[in-house]
This record gives sequence, structure tokens and C-alpha cells, in this order.
Amino acid sequence: MPANTFGELFRITTWGESHGGGVGVVVDGCPPRLEISEAEIQSELDRRRPGQSNLTTARSETDTVQILSGLFEGQTLGTPISMMVWNKDANSAHYADMQHVFRPSHADFTYQAKYGIRNWQGGGRASARETVGRVAAGAVAQKLLQQQASTQIIAFVSSIHTIEAVFDATQVSRELVESSIVRCPDQQATGKMEQAILDAKAAGDSLGGVIMCIVKNVPLGLGAPVFDKLEADLAKACMSIPATKGFEIGSGFAGTRLFGSEHNDPFIKGKDGKTHTTTNNSGGIQGGISNGEDILLRIAFKPTATIAKEQKTVDDTGKETTLAAKGRHDPCVLPRAVPIVEAMVSLVLVDHWLRQKAQCG
Amino acid sequence: MPANTFGELFRITTWGESHGGGVGVVVDGCPPRLEISEAEIQSELDRRRPGQSNLTTARSETDTVQILSGLFEGQTLGTPISMMVWNKDANSAHYADMQHVFRPSHADFTYQAKYGIRNWQGGGRASARETVGRVAAGAVAQKLLQQQASTQIIAFVSSIHTIEAVFDATQVSRELVESSIVRCPDQQATGKMEQAILDAKAAGDSLGGVIMCIVKNVPLGLGAPVFDKLEADLAKACMSIPATKGFEIGSGFAGTRLFGSEHNDPFIKGKDGKTHTTTNNSGGIQGGISNGEDILLRIAFKPTATIAKEQKTVDDTGKETTLAAKGRHDPCVLPRAVPIVEAMVSLVLVDHWLRQKAQCG
Amino acid sequence: MPANTFGELFRITTWGESHGGGVGVVVDGCPPRLEISEAEIQSELDRRRPGQSNLTTARSETDTVQILSGLFEGQTLGTPISMMVWNKDANSAHYADMQHVFRPSHADFTYQAKYGIRNWQGGGRASARETVGRVAAGAVAQKLLQQQASTQIIAFVSSIHTIEAVFDATQVSRELVESSIVRCPDQQATGKMEQAILDAKAAGDSLGGVIMCIVKNVPLGLGAPVFDKLEADLAKACMSIPATKGFEIGSGFAGTRLFGSEHNDPFIKGKDGKTHTTTNNSGGIQGGISNGEDILLRIAFKPTATIAKEQKTVDDTGKETTLAAKGRHDPCVLPRAVPIVEAMVSLVLVDHWLRQKAQCG
Amino acid sequence: MPANTFGELFRITTWGESHGGGVGVVVDGCPPRLEISEAEIQSELDRRRPGQSNLTTARSETDTVQILSGLFEGQTLGTPISMMVWNKDANSAHYADMQHVFRPSHADFTYQAKYGIRNWQGGGRASARETVGRVAAGAVAQKLLQQQASTQIIAFVSSIHTIEAVFDATQVSRELVESSIVRCPDQQATGKMEQAILDAKAAGDSLGGVIMCIVKNVPLGLGAPVFDKLEADLAKACMSIPATKGFEIGSGFAGTRLFGSEHNDPFIKGKDGKTHTTTNNSGGIQGGISNGEDILLRIAFKPTATIAKEQKTVDDTGKETTLAAKGRHDPCVLPRAVPIVEAMVSLVLVDHWLRQKAQCG
Repeated sequence: MPANTFGELFRITTWGESHGGGVGVVVDGCPPRLEISEAEIQSELDRRRPGQSNLTTARSETDTVQILSGLFEGQTLGTPISMMVWNKDANSAHYADMQHVFRPSHADFTYQAKYGIRNWQGGGRASARETVGRVAAGAVAQKLLQQQASTQIIAFVSSIHTIEAVFDATQVSRELVESSIVRCPDQQATGKMEQAILDAKAAGDSLGGVIMCIVKNVPLGLGAPVFDKLEADLAKACMSIPATKGFEIGSGFAGTRLFGSEHNDPFIKGKDGKTHTTTNNSGGIQGGISNGEDILLRIAFKPTATIAKEQKTVDDTGKETTLAAKGRHDPCVLPRAVPIVEAMVSLVLVDHWLRQKAQCG
Repeated sequence: MPANTFGELFRITTWGESHGGGVGVVVDGCPPRLEISEAEIQSELDRRRPGQSNLTTARSETDTVQILSGLFEGQTLGTPISMMVWNKDANSAHYADMQHVFRPSHADFTYQAKYGIRNWQGGGRASARETVGRVAAGAVAQKLLQQQASTQIIAFVSSIHTIEAVFDATQVSRELVESSIVRCPDQQATGKMEQAILDAKAAGDSLGGVIMCIVKNVPLGLGAPVFDKLEADLAKACMSIPATKGFEIGSGFAGTRLFGSEHNDPFIKGKDGKTHTTTNNSGGIQGGISNGEDILLRIAFKPTATIAKEQKTVDDTGKETTLAAKGRHDPCVLPRAVPIVEAMVSLVLVDHWLRQKAQCG
Repeated sequence: MPANTFGELFRITTWGESHGGGVGVVVDGCPPRLEISEAEIQSELDRRRPGQSNLTTARSETDTVQILSGLFEGQTLGTPISMMVWNKDANSAHYADMQHVFRPSHADFTYQAKYGIRNWQGGGRASARETVGRVAAGAVAQKLLQQQASTQIIAFVSSIHTIEAVFDATQVSRELVESSIVRCPDQQATGKMEQAILDAKAAGDSLGGVIMCIVKNVPLGLGAPVFDKLEADLAKACMSIPATKGFEIGSGFAGTRLFGSEHNDPFIKGKDGKTHTTTNNSGGIQGGISNGEDILLRIAFKPTATIAKEQKTVDDTGKETTLAAKGRHDPCVLPRAVPIVEAMVSLVLVDHWLRQKAQCG
Repeated sequence: MPANTFGELFRITTWGESHGGGVGVVVDGCPPRLEISEAEIQSELDRRRPGQSNLTTARSETDTVQILSGLFEGQTLGTPISMMVWNKDANSAHYADMQHVFRPSHADFTYQAKYGIRNWQGGGRASARETVGRVAAGAVAQKLLQQQASTQIIAFVSSIHTIEAVFDATQVSRELVESSIVRCPDQQATGKMEQAILDAKAAGDSLGGVIMCIVKNVPLGLGAPVFDKLEADLAKACMSIPATKGFEIGSGFAGTRLFGSEHNDPFIKGKDGKTHTTTNNSGGIQGGISNGEDILLRIAFKPTATIAKEQKTVDDTGKETTLAAKGRHDPCVLPRAVPIVEAMVSLVLVDHWLRQKAQCG
């Protein structure tokens, strides 16, 4: 059961609970002779790690990556790359109350129902900590795409709660995003979002929002007809990120309100002599296959389930009770979810790039 | 490359172009001794087939299914079930104009770019005709789920263009849906939708919309943490249907505007003595695993790409030109997409049901 | 469950019982623009079909292949190639005795135990008829390998019962093999083998033997370390052919009796300036990866299980009884198994060739 | 590319080179609530580790396993079990001579040809050290099989070089095997084998041999028709072990010399009231599916490729040279390969046991 494995040719397997030895990933299928350093992987993990700012969980983890195999003298060997991060600041005491009481809208109840056992000291595999492995693997994928096709993957926060950012997606840069404490390219919105998160935190509550991702310089021809359409694989990748509730490619739900004659993207001969489209409702994908235009997608994240406010729930005997959760949780996961989205998108693209080389290369 | 294969344990492989011998599917991994007849499969195909009403393509295909293997005396053998439908009313003449000219927002350009060849006599694998195999396989999956867990999967049209239906999702029945020419449970909206489709058709244009799906009696514990979350697999399944642009589970994008304290679904002890939730923003899935409540999802479909109106495009030499497409295309795919959505949802559920039996049964 | 699917990138799915509609295969992942005709596939099927000579079953099947999808104007489209053959001369009457009585060493008992049902009218999926799909798919794979790397795959009978052929494996040609009624390159042995088979047939008995396969012009670098070693995938492919009991690569079991200093293949600089080995105990594979030398393998086939001689057995209530099987069975499967071995070997090689293009190309 | 992954439902992924951080494995799909301890896994690793006796490499590795995830209070969680062993006694100096010179019949040349890079400080993934992960995972698999079906897997050395052991396979016990320094159930042969290995070592040479494996209490119905026949998956599993050259199930190559009437295993009603066979040429598998009798298989291992004797070879520029390998290598891998064979066999069986539960349970 490949439940902890993602990808066909560039295949990652993640492991680890939030409390226990550590978390890690094995990357299999990476082409040989890619130059990559621990520092490059660490720099992506630093964008994901807790304790970056006053907006994130106070759990203090340096998340220092160790590469255990697959590299030799700074280059990939073509064999599995095993990377891990040790758990350091796990505090199980915070979870004592939750040993027998299920957090509403969290995975406690369903894990118990499915497996008949769960590591209640932390969120187990449902913890955001599991995504360490995704981000480490995504750093390798992004390096490969960047090197092979100058592909650039930029995710950012486009809304938090009711605050909508204003931006031109095609102009957003990694630098602009990183200059915002909430990773939003709109400076004004950033201030309001920061305040809203702090307010929610103070109230023992939490916020959700939308992350957008744009991919530039996508190789033409990635994806496949039928089940492995590029947008279908991107949807799965993004909806596998904890707390996601929706996915849109290109025009998304808004596109359902257009006529075909409005929605269709006319083809033209571009200045580069190649075929391009004048609009991009397709979001860079037609018939499941990339058309060379920017890929544009949006992901809905619900507000964090674990909150300090008291809520109605049941315990593991089915008895009704209440819970005000302790522990150190992000009042809003979006700022830290940005590198996770980039990682998942890069994993889909690199996988389809290898598949394209195999069948049509 | 499993591009034409879906599922891990209940695995389907579809084949066939819209013009050529036929289309079909091989279902592998179906449990033995399931009673199922050609008639039951045919009845699902009849809901998908063209020419059902004046709202769909005039292409006349009876889509009569033939079961070529895997059954014996009315029961499944546990070996591959091969089913097919012959192509009968393919009219390649309609496609002559499109041999060298790419339809905007269709797969013509990307297929040619990817493969360097395409069957221009029809839409090849991008044709909705490919979904015949999905619906046939879905009929088997639904029978199995129905028999094992009384699971019921009901999809329906919730909006077309700007016309929104009004309904209580938990009260929608298959009968109610089938009584509407557009498969919408709101009778008033049905009339407006029908007219809107006819108007678009007359104008040589097309419409999109939203399909909703509700699943009742979902077994508790289906799905898996991390990559194969039930919502992730549902997202992939639904976004692999032609013309889809968005996917939502439970609260979807609207849920991003709620506080955590509003969005969380409180647990209670239900009248049946089991744990239930009082609200269902989770859409029946928490931590990637079904919690026993109804699964609720929504899918955005864009307006049909192939329209009779003249549009700007390029030909296969890159030269700019215009195209007013001939051929018999649905001005709105949604009414016929309803059974396709049900098929894809059932395939995901039956696969995870078998996976659950394997690991935790 | 991919039980009826073989290959990762060049992936085939076979279907069909010996009695019922027909048998077939779907080939997914084939590169586009390969020129291939129905006639080329038919010519391989003709080598496998029953009724070729007085040594094979009298069942009369023309095994005429129909290509249902995946080709356009004589070239592959890159989409699934669906091929089938209808069953014509199935005679269920021969099987009436076996409805309730299990043939010794056949699959009747284990199928019934596993599935609780079986198509007793013929051997179901255990029938050699299932291999029609393998041979059809193998014809595509061989064409591809031949075109891309001039790779040549030649299998032949090296022994039947106690009769051992004498030959120089590196000199055996397809023509030489086809000139022998038992597909053995040794003319003298051919005569003895033919007689032995006819004698066994007359006695209501059956014979086994060994098939050898040599592959020339194997691209360097095919295979993978660890689980997907080229010899491991070849072993699985060959041991999935009905009636096989053993597999050897290179020196095989005899190699266990040599010293390391005798067994190791010294490297030299060849006349072509490339690295070669002076001996080939490795059978063309070192560390799981092809070294460019000829691949050499051997497969043991047991004598046909279904025989006319009376044997002790039990019925499906567990009661002891006897059985003298009716039906038309090959007294020796080896002559017809030769193209099946070639098909399976070619499927492994083409799959690893695509994998090599993906990761290291 | 699942090249470092084995199994469908009970799926292991191994990683690590012989020189570098360490070696490990991730086990995914294990049922929850299996009680298993680090000590149980360690005891299997101890049987595999170097330096057990004067017959094995002098490399000193304690191979102490660390379980990094997937267990909680002594029970499996149903989530990935990550286990690793650090490399300690790696001595790259021994490999300096081999940086540019290829060992005959080793993976040096093919790895370099495939990847264009290799970790020449040790054998990389071709090192027997890679099998640490297999044995650790196999310990979990064996515990599960033992607990669920009292299945017992016993491998042992049946020959080394020309010395053949005499034994009754059905009477061999784990204790008997472990009491022999070469893991051979025949005490007399043990002495001769020990001497032969010491003689070969003294001569700078190496020996091969045959390992046999018997599996008792195999659940009825494991395996699948067509490609995933139980013997095919066992063949792949066993032929993926380094240095293997051949595989036999049941009668093997010797069975090709019998008549069908001699080879067929007659069914009888056993004393337990169940159907059994009086002989076991089938080796416990018929039609790819276990019939409940003991599984019997044999594996050929070539003599170790790395030897101290001087041999002809080439360097990485293609120039001819000679090599007398330094380093600490087993003169005969068979004694240490016994637990590896048991691990691989158990992984196949547990995987098919879960598959059987899924489809037919």
C-alpha cells in the first residue's frame, strides 16, 4: 500500500511521527550527477520550520537535515537519497488531556477508528511535522527542474480569512514573498493578515485562507491523457497537504460562469515564434498536458483544527465532554504551508518530466 | 506508465479512441462471487450515452456493452473483467477542418506537442467517449459498495452558468435527479438551465457549471494518512474527468473564511450510540480518513471547448487562422457528466475499502 | 492488485478465459510513432497458436488478432493499444468430467480454494490461452527493441525429457529454430524429441524440458540495483509462464561448483575499443545491470499436467476418486512456449530501456 | 521507479551505501497492533551481520538497529516503520585501488556505465550491506506470519562448491541450522564445508553453493494467476539477492526429466480431513497459488566476485590491467545469506497474504 509514497518515477516515501525518533524521507529515482548540498535542502526546511516568527507555533525545532545516503562528493548517485531530521522539542505533556479525548475536526477519532491504536503524544502522522520530508524531497525536485528547464515554482498567500491580497500573479517573485511575514506579495494585506492572526491567537481561535501557486517555464508536453492528467496529479498532491479543502486550476469555479467563447484561450503565434495563448483560463494545462503557459493553481486551507477555545466533543468511550486544547499550534498554517505547496507541485512536475523523457524523449 | 490505469486494488485500465474500433475497460482485482449482469452495467451506460435528449450531442451511439471475460454464470470470477462498446456513429468528415487546425482550449495542440502524432478524426483519448469504460467499471464498484455497506453515491447538477439550484443535499435521491432533464434536483432551476443550454447551443456557444456529489453510508476508516488521503484520491479522480477546473470537499473555499471555532465539527454521541458530528464542514473526512458522516464534494466543469462560433487559433505550422468547429458536441457536458462523477467516486471508495480490509481487516 | 498487469513503463494488462468471449491485452506506455502492423503481430501469434503441427493440441484456433485502439495510419499514438482474439473452438463438453473433479497438479483446486468459484469450462486464466495477450504485446516490444538497438531475442528448446540438444547458443538463429518442428536448433535432437512427444501422446502421458534464450545487442546499463535487478525481473517474467519450475541466468546452478577465480569474467578491451568480458558466466548481467554481453537464460518446464492417463485425485467435496482427462492438450508445451519466452523477455527489456531513458537518459 | 521498493501491500524501501551514513529500510502497510520489539529485529540482524565467525568478513559491525518511527508502546501503529543501522567500520582505504579499476564480475563497471558516477569507497548499493534493511523488514513479516498462521520459514545451506549435504528437508529446524557454523543441517557436511571455505580463503579464492528454503503452514490460496504467480514473485525476490544465479520451485530442473504421470502430485483426503497431495513436485504451488503443502525452493549463489587472487581486468579508461582486491570480503556468502533468503521469502508471503485478505477475505 503506497499510502506513504508519492510519485511514479521520482518517488518519495516519508516516515515519522511528531513524537518519537524523528521524521524523514527516502527519494528514489533521482537522476545521477545532480549537484546538491545539505545547505540547499536546509534553506527550504528553514522556510517550513516552526518558530520562524510570532505567528507560528512556539515549538522550537531547528530541523537540521542529515543526508544519510545517495550522495557522493556533492552529487547524486542515482540511488536512494535518505534524509532525516531528529525530533527535539516534543512535549508530550501538552497532549496528556488528549489521550482519551478527540479533538474536533482533527485526525484523532478517525485514526483510532481505522487502526485501533494511535500515538496520542502529538498528532502522529497527521502532524504538520510529517511535511518535513516532503519539503526536503521538494528541494531536490526544484533543483532538478531549475537546472533542466529553468522552471520556477512560486507559491504565496492570496487570502487569509476575509482579507484578500491584491497582486499580479505573473509578477510575484520569491523575494517579494519572503519579504512578507505571512508570505503574501501584497504589503498592505500583509499587515492586516498579521494582525488578524495575532487577534485569532489571542482569542484561542484560528484562521484559514488561500494559497496560490504559479509555475513559470513549464516544459511543453508534461502530463498524460485520462487518469494522470497533470491537473489531476496536482490536485492529489495539493489535497494531500494537511488542512486543505479545495483546489482550482486556471479559471477554477469562477470559470463555470463563463460562456465557452469567453473561456477558451485563443492561440496566437508569439514573439518567440512559438504557439501561445492570449488568455490563460486553462491554467497552463489542456487535455491534461502542459501547453507551455504558466501553471496557475489555488488551494483552500481550513482554519487550524486544534484551538485553545473550549469545544464540544466526545472521549474514546463515546461519552460527551469538552476540550480546550493545550500544545503549541499555529493559529494559521498558511505562512508555513507555502514551501510545502511548492514542494508538492515540484514533485508532480519532476515526475511527469521523467515520464515524458521515458515515453516520448 | 499507469497513465490509463486507476486504482491500487480495484484497478481499471481504459482504452480506445472516439474514432476507431471501440472503447473499453479492464477491471482487475474485483472480489469473486459478486452477482452482476450486463443489464446493470448497461443501465449506467445509458445515463452517460449521447443522444439522450435535445441537450446532448446528436451523435447516435447505443453504447451496448459486451462483457468479454471475468464472469461465469452471472458471478465475478475474481479475474479481469473486460468490457467494451463498439464505435458506430463516428463521422470523421466533421473533423476534416481540424486535421491541421487546433481547437482553442482543447487537447489537439498539447497531444500533437507531446506525441508528435494524434488521431485527428475525433478527439482521440480526450474525447468524452473515453469515459464509457469508467462508467462501466463504476457500475461494478457501486454494486459492490451497495452490497457490502449499503453505500449510496448520488451526484447531481448544482449550477449551470449563473443559474444556481436550491436543494438540501442530504435529501437528494437518484430518482429526483433522474427526473430532471439536466439532472438537477431543483425543478425550477431545471427549467432555466434547460433554456440556457438551448440558447447557448443556438448561439454556437457552450456552458459550464458545478456538479455536487453526496455519499451516504460510508464505512468508517476508509482512506490513509499522508499522500493517499481520501480527499486527495477523490480530488485526483474527479479532476481526471475531462473539462474539470476545481474540486472542493466539505466547506471548500468558503470554509477559508470561517474561524476555527466555527469550522470545527463538534463530536456528539448520536441516537445510534455512535460518535457523530453536529455539522459537516469536514465533508465526511478528517485527517484523510472517512469519519462515517456523508461525504460531500463539488466539482467545477468549464464550458465545452468545441464550439461552432468562430475563434482565433493557429494551425499545425504555427500560422494564425480561425476555426468554427463542426461536429456534434454537447453544448453543456454536465447532465451527462453526472454518472461519470458517480463512477469515479465509487472507484476511489471501493479501492480504499479493499485497502482497509487488507491492512486493518 | 496488479495481478494481471506486467511492467512499470511499458505496461501490459491481459484478460480472458479459455472459454468465454475471447482473450486480449492492453499495452500502455508504448512510445508514439512506432510503425507496426497487424500482420507483424499475427506472425508472432501464429508461432504460438494451437494446431500448428501434430505435436500440439488439436484445438483449432486461428487466433486472428484485432487491434481495437492505439494505432493511427500504421503508427502507435502513445495511447493504449488494445488487441484481442476471439475464442472459437472452445469445447466445454470435454470439461464436463472436470466440473467437480480436480486435475492433479493443475490450478483447478487452488483456484476453487482461493476464489470459491472457477470457470470449469476450460482452464480459466490458467489456460495457456491467456498467453495470447503476452505474445501480442511482446511483438510490439520486440519491434521497438529491434528498431532502437538492433536487439535480437532468440529462444529455443534445449532439452525435452532426457534428450539434450547440442548447439552453440551464440550461433542459433530464428531461422534455424523455426526450421525445427520442436523449435530446437539441433536437427538430430529434433527427430528424437518429435518421436518422444508422439510416444508420450500415444501413452496418454506428457513431457517437460528446458528452453534457453539468448539476447544479442543488449543496451549497456539496463536494470537497477537491489530489487529490480535485471535478472530478478527476468526471473519473475519467465516464472510467470505456466508450467515453469526453474530459472537460470548465465552459469546458473552449475556455477555454484566453480571457484571465484574460475567463475569471474575477466574484462578486456575488445576489438571495437569497448570493454568486454572473455567469458560470460554472468550471462550479460552484473550487479543487476546489463554489461553489454549476450544475455543467456534457461527455463525449466514441467510435463503438462493434464493427461489422458488415469490418476488419483479428489472431487470438490474432498472425496477420493480418479480422473482420465479428456480435452485437447499439448503432450509437451515447449515448442509453443518458445515465442512466449521471447515475449516475456522482450517485455522486461523494453521496460528497463524506458526506465533507463527516464532516469539516466 | 520502484527500484528500491519491494512489495505491493507490505512494502519495503531500502536505502544506504556500504560507506556513508548508514543503511536502513522503511516498511509501509504493516497491519496495526502487531507486538514487536527491537530485540526481535536485532536477533535476525545478528544472524546476518559480518564477523560472526572466522568464515565471514572481518569487517566489524554490530549492526545495532534503531527503530525511528511506526511503533508506540511496543505495537505497530499501521504507519511507516523506519529502521536504520549506522555504518561504523567502513574502511575506504581498502578500496583506493578500485577507484579506477573494475573488479571482474562485480557491479563496478555496470554502475559506472549506467550512472556515470559511483561511490567507489565500498560496493555502494551492490554491497551485501544493503541487505540489512531486508532482514530487518523480514523480521516484522515473519512475526506477522507466525502470529497469523503459524507459518514457519526455514532456509539452510544444501551445498557449498561440490559438497552436497544430506538431509530430509521436512525435518530441518531453525535450531539445527543455527547449530552449524555454515548453517547446514548435515553435521558431517558442515565440517567439510567449513574446511573448504577456509582453504579457499587461504588461497585468496571464493566459493558458491545452494541454499534451500522450506515454508511450513502456508495459508491456502496465496498468490495470483498470471503475472503475480506465487513462484514468480518468489523467484524475483530470491533473484534480487546479490550473487544469485538460479532459482527452482519444487521439482525444478530435475522435474523436466519426468513424465507427467510421474510428476503430477495425486490429491488425497488427508488425516485432517483436508485435501493434500501425496508427493510435492509442485513445491506447494499450483497455478501460481499455494495449495497448503510445504513450499520448497532452491537458490544458486555464485562464488564471491571480490577475491584476493590477481585477475585480468580493465580500468575506467578501458586500459587492460590486473587487480588483486584488498578489503574484507566473505570467501563464501552462503552462511550469512540464509537469513536474507528467509527475509525475502517472508516478504513475498506476507504481501500475498494481505492481498488475499483484500480481494477474497
